[in-house]
Amino acid sequence: MPQTAWQLLGEYLRETTLLGSIQNTLYWDQNTIMPSSGAEWRGEQLSFLAKKLHARQTSEELCELLDNAKSEFSQDCLNAKLDSLTSRDRSRNIELLEEDLRRQQSLDPDLIVQLAKAKANGYMLWKEAKANNDFQCFAPALQNLISLRKEQAKQLDEPRSCWETLAQPYEPGLSIDRLKELFHPLRIKLPELIQKVSKNKKSDSQKWDLSIEAQKKLSDQLLTEWCRDKKKVAVAKSPHPFSITLGPNDFRITTRIVEGQPLSCFLATAHEWGHSLYEQGLPSECNQWFAWPLGQATSMAVHESQSLFWENRIARSLQFAKNYWKHFQKAGAAINCSDDLWHVMNPFVPGLNRVEADELSYGLHIMIRTDLEIALLEQDLPVRELPMQWNKRYEELLGVVPENDREGCLQDVHWSEGMFGYFPSYLLGHLISAQLSKTLEKEIGAIGSILETGNIKPLLKWLRENVHHYGRSLNAEELVKKVTGESLSTRYFIEYLETKLIYLIN
Amino acid sequence: MPQTAWQLLGEYLRETTLLGSIQNTLYWDQNTIMPSSGAEWRGEQLSFLAKKLHARQTSEELCELLDNAKSEFSQDCLNAKLDSLTSRDRSRNIELLEEDLRRQQSLDPDLIVQLAKAKANGYMLWKEAKANNDFQCFAPALQNLISLRKEQAKQLDEPRSCWETLAQPYEPGLSIDRLKELFHPLRIKLPELIQKVSKNKKSDSQKWDLSIEAQKKLSDQLLTEWCRDKKKVAVAKSPHPFSITLGPNDFRITTRIVEGQPLSCFLATAHEWGHSLYEQGLPSECNQWFAWPLGQATSMAVHESQSLFWENRIARSLQFAKNYWKHFQKAGAAINCSDDLWHVMNPFVPGLNRVEADELSYGLHIMIRTDLEIALLEQDLPVRELPMQWNKRYEELLGVVPENDREGCLQDVHWSEGMFGYFPSYLLGHLISAQLSKTLEKEIGAIGSILETGNIKPLLKWLRENVHHYGRSLNAEELVKKVTGESLSTRYFIEYLETKLIYLIN
Repeated sequence: MPQTAWQLLGEYLRETTLLGSIQNTLYWDQNTIMPSSGAEWRGEQLSFLAKKLHARQTSEELCELLDNAKSEFSQDCLNAKLDSLTSRDRSRNIELLEEDLRRQQSLDPDLIVQLAKAKANGYMLWKEAKANNDFQCFAPALQNLISLRKEQAKQLDEPRSCWETLAQPYEPGLSIDRLKELFHPLRIKLPELIQKVSKNKKSDSQKWDLSIEAQKKLSDQLLTEWCRDKKKVAVAKSPHPFSITLGPNDFRITTRIVEGQPLSCFLATAHEWGHSLYEQGLPSECNQWFAWPLGQATSMAVHESQSLFWENRIARSLQFAKNYWKHFQKAGAAINCSDDLWHVMNPFVPGLNRVEADELSYGLHIMIRTDLEIALLEQDLPVRELPMQWNKRYEELLGVVPENDREGCLQDVHWSEGMFGYFPSYLLGHLISAQLSKTLEKEIGAIGSILETGNIKPLLKWLRENVHHYGRSLNAEELVKKVTGESLSTRYFIEYLETKLIYLIN
Repeated sequence: MPQTAWQLLGEYLRETTLLGSIQNTLYWDQNTIMPSSGAEWRGEQLSFLAKKLHARQTSEELCELLDNAKSEFSQDCLNAKLDSLTSRDRSRNIELLEEDLRRQQSLDPDLIVQLAKAKANGYMLWKEAKANNDFQCFAPALQNLISLRKEQAKQLDEPRSCWETLAQPYEPGLSIDRLKELFHPLRIKLPELIQKVSKNKKSDSQKWDLSIEAQKKLSDQLLTEWCRDKKKVAVAKSPHPFSITLGPNDFRITTRIVEGQPLSCFLATAHEWGHSLYEQGLPSECNQWFAWPLGQATSMAVHESQSLFWENRIARSLQFAKNYWKHFQKAGAAINCSDDLWHVMNPFVPGLNRVEADELSYGLHIMIRTDLEIALLEQDLPVRELPMQWNKRYEELLGVVPENDREGCLQDVHWSEGMFGYFPSYLLGHLISAQLSKTLEKEIGAIGSILETGNIKPLLKWLRENVHHYGRSLNAEELVKKVTGESLSTRYFIEYLETKLIYLIN
């Protein structure tokens, strides 16, 4: 049977996706079980696959297949062969494929090689610098990454600033002006709220720990209650928790056990499970869309909104503490009532570390990074001044000063690989989660009341039907508008924090 | 710098090996952690890689690279540019590469596709047949596999019989006549020994079990004492234990926990570790040989000889029981002296199942399968008669009759994928292990005395220096001759069993 141009393009994309998912499998293995001396060969395997993948994503064959599919589509539209839904989806798939192709093709192959090397080198030196608390040993590599990323933005030649261009793959459509508009109210409000808490809240620092077994058991219970299908989802441990998709019906998440942090494993599980639920809910159309843009996650902020929903809106909520405090007590925690659990879940004390930050100070960590990235890429901030600028901003916004760069500007991995433009997605995720939650509550009732029933399925059902299934058909802001009827705003996140604080400090 | 033809060939082989090791990584993941619903996509990933791999192994490019390397090598030899060791190794590498290439190229691509389908179909129907104890549902698929394998042997067109041709990839150089010569004494001797045991040995069936934790701990202890380097070797669980190499410094083994069989995990660990030690000891020449034939295992029989050495000669030995019985007792086993452990490690009661068979009856299981394979492929044994013939031989040789085909001719997976010619390697491994052990003891002292010191390093050192490092430079029989000064013989295996029995039944 002769195949349509659309089918032929689909087959090509399917093979590309096979390769990409093989890459993901190697990455999963590397982070969960690979013995350390396997690293060098694994690196070779991954760069071999990356080369093949890049070749497929920029090939003449793909251009032709895409052109043919586009012509066929125009013809089919003229002949009114397609229903309106199919037309809309095809048109959007073509648009996204052309965008991806243009991005891939506009880069000089030399630059790609240089970037790969600079990333590997930067990562290595950053680890060394962090271990030895020696920013200067990393500084030249960072400078090199900045130059190469600037060159990348130049070659991409988009009608956007340098930083904006680099942020597009994570957050399609994002602009610096829009970011300022969204973040500005938080820059005022969050420090105020932190002040308020520090005056009123008694200290509830957790001084107990849980056995590895107990932590594992609590996390397993959580996943079971949150609809994990063991046939579809495997769980393992890794130094940094992550969620990854290895096939249309093969999802994985990892968590970690940290001594002295008995909630770390549990909350990481909740967080990564939120990411995975989003991926599991992406439009698949019997899996055939797995390889098409429409079947992919639309942005890192939307992704983060889903993980933060389950971590913060659910697992750190008062009602959840009511449901779970006895399980924690039974597991060996020094917890005697729901309030005890709720308070340790929500310490609300500003610190130096982004990853360990709570909902209240998290945004400030992000704003500092975003400002500094833009300064490095667009405002000629010299790399050598980064530690000083970092520390200054931490003192101003969070009232804490790192004792050294390891606790300061060397804490995150992102810049070591020249990953600029990613950080804002984390905070945008908080905003999106808050705004979506507001609509969810309007439509199916208060989250607390739903949790009271002990059945989270209505929450998941709402997210599936209203958020997950759009894939890349809408970008983050379009999705929020579609679901909530309003543009993305900071309002709901602040409202949520204020309400939570009222309960928490009383 | 211009590269030599030899280097260019090496780079090509390296990429091929990268692909192969990626395949192995997917296989490892599939068998250790992949959620079941990932199977379909994993199948697509694997067949995608298999296609790419086959294309690389039969490409015009490879032919040319090999031709060039060969010409260059001749020229270098004429000009006396290479030392004799390098010449010898290069010449052998070329020989093996040409052989592999000829084999790959002589097959009609249609046949390869048909075989792939027949294997997948055969495996599926075998699982069904086994579950439902319904040989007839599998029979047509088996018939089809036999026809296709016959056709494969015909296309390979080697100066060997059909069965011999199919056995070559597992056991280079093996002939049916040689096999008969080696197996014949066992056909007489093993039933005699079994008789002798059944008359004299008291029953020591194990009636205790060990917790999962205890089994894991004992196996971990074993691996630590047996020189596992955690930086190089990862361990996981899988339904069927296996050993696999994922990179020049990345080795993996699996084990399993079986309820009611407290030694299963421990002995599987010993066995798979033996396989892995062999792979770890293959010649690597700073890893650059990883991709060349000389860096590969020479045959399945040699592989098996190494796993059987650690499982049977070491872990099932009396001295080992003396070292370990207290650990087993402490772990919760009903073991009160070294003899108790030694006896449960060596039940010596013939049964229906090959995998669970002990050293004494194992060989008979293999001879039955070998005879039947040859009958199916070369003597027109009708497939429908297989169950009857199987049962008849079990009664004759082992004195037991399967109650159904599930316990009988459907027990092994091999034939479901048309894997004919593999079984003898298991028994040859016993013979090789015995003969190598004899020489080892002559050179460095009795195994029992070495074990008494609690330090197995001298054993491993001897194997590394005398067995492992040859790779494919010698085939199984050549290796045995080289190491022991004699042709492979059945004598040492029988001697070993007889000596063991004297102690065991007294």
